[in-house]
Amino acid sequence: MDIFEHMEAALSGLKSAGNYRVFAELERRNSAFPRATFYEDGGATRDVTVWCSNDYLGMGQNPVVTGRMVEVIGQCGAGAGGTRNISGTNHHHVLLERELADLHAKEAALIFTSGYVSNWAALGTLLARIPGIIVYSDALNHASMIEGIRHARCEKRLFRHNDPAHLRALMAADDPAAPKMVAFESVYSMDGDIAPIREICDVADAFGAITYLDEVHAVGMYGPRGGGVAEREGLMDRITVIEGTLGKAFGVMGGYITGPAVLVDFVRSFASGFIFTTALPPALAAAAAASIRHLKESQSERQAHQAAVAKVRSALDARGIPHKHNPSHIVPVIVGNASKCKWISDVLLNDFGIYVQPINYPTVPVGTERLRITPTPLHSDADIRHLVEALSALWSQCALARAVA
Amino acid sequence: MDIFEHMEAALSGLKSAGNYRVFAELERRNSAFPRATFYEDGGATRDVTVWCSNDYLGMGQNPVVTGRMVEVIGQCGAGAGGTRNISGTNHHHVLLERELADLHAKEAALIFTSGYVSNWAALGTLLARIPGIIVYSDALNHASMIEGIRHARCEKRLFRHNDPAHLRALMAADDPAAPKMVAFESVYSMDGDIAPIREICDVADAFGAITYLDEVHAVGMYGPRGGGVAEREGLMDRITVIEGTLGKAFGVMGGYITGPAVLVDFVRSFASGFIFTTALPPALAAAAAASIRHLKESQSERQAHQAAVAKVRSALDARGIPHKHNPSHIVPVIVGNASKCKWISDVLLNDFGIYVQPINYPTVPVGTERLRITPTPLHSDADIRHLVEALSALWSQCALARAVA
Ligand SMILES: Cc1ncc(COP(=O)(O)O)c(C=O)c1O
Ligand SMILES: Cc1ncc(COP(=O)(O)O)c(C=O)c1O
Repeated sequence: MDIFEHMEAALSGLKSAGNYRVFAELERRNSAFPRATFYEDGGATRDVTVWCSNDYLGMGQNPVVTGRMVEVIGQCGAGAGGTRNISGTNHHHVLLERELADLHAKEAALIFTSGYVSNWAALGTLLARIPGIIVYSDALNHASMIEGIRHARCEKRLFRHNDPAHLRALMAADDPAAPKMVAFESVYSMDGDIAPIREICDVADAFGAITYLDEVHAVGMYGPRGGGVAEREGLMDRITVIEGTLGKAFGVMGGYITGPAVLVDFVRSFASGFIFTTALPPALAAAAAASIRHLKESQSERQAHQAAVAKVRSALDARGIPHKHNPSHIVPVIVGNASKCKWISDVLLNDFGIYVQPINYPTVPVGTERLRITPTPLHSDADIRHLVEALSALWSQCALARAVA
Repeated sequence: MDIFEHMEAALSGLKSAGNYRVFAELERRNSAFPRATFYEDGGATRDVTVWCSNDYLGMGQNPVVTGRMVEVIGQCGAGAGGTRNISGTNHHHVLLERELADLHAKEAALIFTSGYVSNWAALGTLLARIPGIIVYSDALNHASMIEGIRHARCEKRLFRHNDPAHLRALMAADDPAAPKMVAFESVYSMDGDIAPIREICDVADAFGAITYLDEVHAVGMYGPRGGGVAEREGLMDRITVIEGTLGKAFGVMGGYITGPAVLVDFVRSFASGFIFTTALPPALAAAAAASIRHLKESQSERQAHQAAVAKVRSALDARGIPHKHNPSHIVPVIVGNASKCKWISDVLLNDFGIYVQPINYPTVPVGTERLRITPTPLHSDADIRHLVEALSALWSQCALARAVA
């Protein structure tokens, strides 16, 4: 077999299925978010409004964050200069880990280069190194959790998405003496639904399982101090490990776990993906810490965020644009066809200056292709009107079904 | 089994073997590198000279790099705000990828959040998705390459470190029709030895294998434009994929692959670790691009670096401190015992203000514990004298063997 022909064929397959990805080349504009510069193929540029960023609160341009990042570049330079063990642990990493442990009311925290790596490395290490452990994984868990579980090669059960009864049935069928972990998310990012955390913890407790919760799409945005959905619901102490990212609502980059000191030390000591990699730049750690500190105190971003989400939803409803109802900040408009989804996205970009990336397989199942709209506190009422009018025009143009009130 | 007792026991095991890691908490000082502030347990601080950083050329504090990073924070803010596919591709990522493809004279490049992730994701994807492929992996390959290969679950052969004859014997024993890849490094970071790239490529060519070369400890430092050892030896075109980091000699953070356009597009399209993670902050991409551009032109950092390495070596020789001879910039002083190595490192830190992390298992095999000294262009002659005199005093004090000239 020719390797290159095989790769060509695989890429052609993506293209003919409408799943080949063309990245939109943007230039974010500090202090003008959600406005950005869009680069066309030839290099020509024009203005767009971004409606699909995970910089959910606009913290990526908050002067508290950017100012701190610039300040610490001045103090410490650019990179960390080493792995955590070999000259790469910076004072700002230590401070960030304290900030995170405090955020989730846990004994300890550990930062990674990304949320992806935190899930992969922490789950991979825990599940590979606790002999006989069985993991119960929500069927819609994120790719990074799936990869961590795959790495471990431990016993695995998939429970139906957000279904504590199914979880209970699976756990009841297993050896009561086997160590167990339940791994799930709070806000699922593509549908915006939220896990029944309390019910899942009740089941986990009944079978003596530890719990691992990905709050990547919730930290900063939910709870009185931005600790996530578990904080809002008073359930942080029911969760063994809370995992999160510094790259979405906190506006920077990096990931982390928080939990019992011994568990965090165990991951720190054994996780290949933590040990053998250059540490985060000190300025990123300091910027993330500033973002977290700010959102522990300030409610205004969270309130404005929820208000923007509510406005987008009711404007969509008023025009009959169908969107998935859910209790979170994510507004999925299901199109259900890869090519049509891409076409709508192209027209929004070219004719209306609106950028919403079409989401297709493998990020969502085939047949559920969608526009995933993420309102932020920085989208104005005029932005919202413009978005919804554009969608409405397109819905008429291509005879897409409207929702009936 | 109690999960927490199990973790406690594993950590106790590390402690009794002398392999438990205590991270040195530092604060790098911009424009004073290799000077840093060391934080003691109680929070008291003092000055140290860092002798084990992988910021090999001090680019982490070069104004070309830090200035560009600050500038682009001003233009684009802190984080990228999304995955590469969903609003996260920034103009600065595209420019960096062009810079990297040019550096290695390849058709295309792809950046990742770290060198670790680039190896894991690229090898994992290529090896899992090319049916029937056999990988021939150098026995001392880095953890990130091992994890990528482990992920793929493909057929794997380990060839003896830097041994093309063994590689040839293994390849000759396999099905000539099977697709094949040879995966190796140029500079091996713990011993500082360099692969026989030409001979390995000759063997790979003879059996129609593609080649994958990790130049993480070489990019920026070797070759007339900092393209690595393969550039220096005129062999870049013999290598299919060149992988590197932005976090060591380039002084920032991130990783990359460069290679044929179709292969890079294949990894871009299928690698979970590339797709499902927030992109690098635009300011990091721009800072890395500035660093690469600078080192394409400027020879002075590379020359001063090699000069510092030569001075350290001859000063060690003059005092009879044994160190591994190798053709690279890494100066390993083998101690051969975890506790003794840690003790020496502690005394250097406490009595001499010199920070060299002891390197122990699992980074190096048990019995080869070492101090890994990395001279930089910013270590002065006085720094070198101070280091070697301190080591000499310690060698006398604990009756360590001296090298005989
Ligand atoms: C649920 C979930 N977990 C983890 C991640 C990875 O986080 P990061 O982007 O910081 O790598 C993502 C998205 O990127 C995610 O959606
Ligand atoms: C040979 C080798 N490859 C890859 C890596 C990972 O690169 P990064 O630090 O950018 O994750 C390292 C060290 O960290 C390394 O030594």
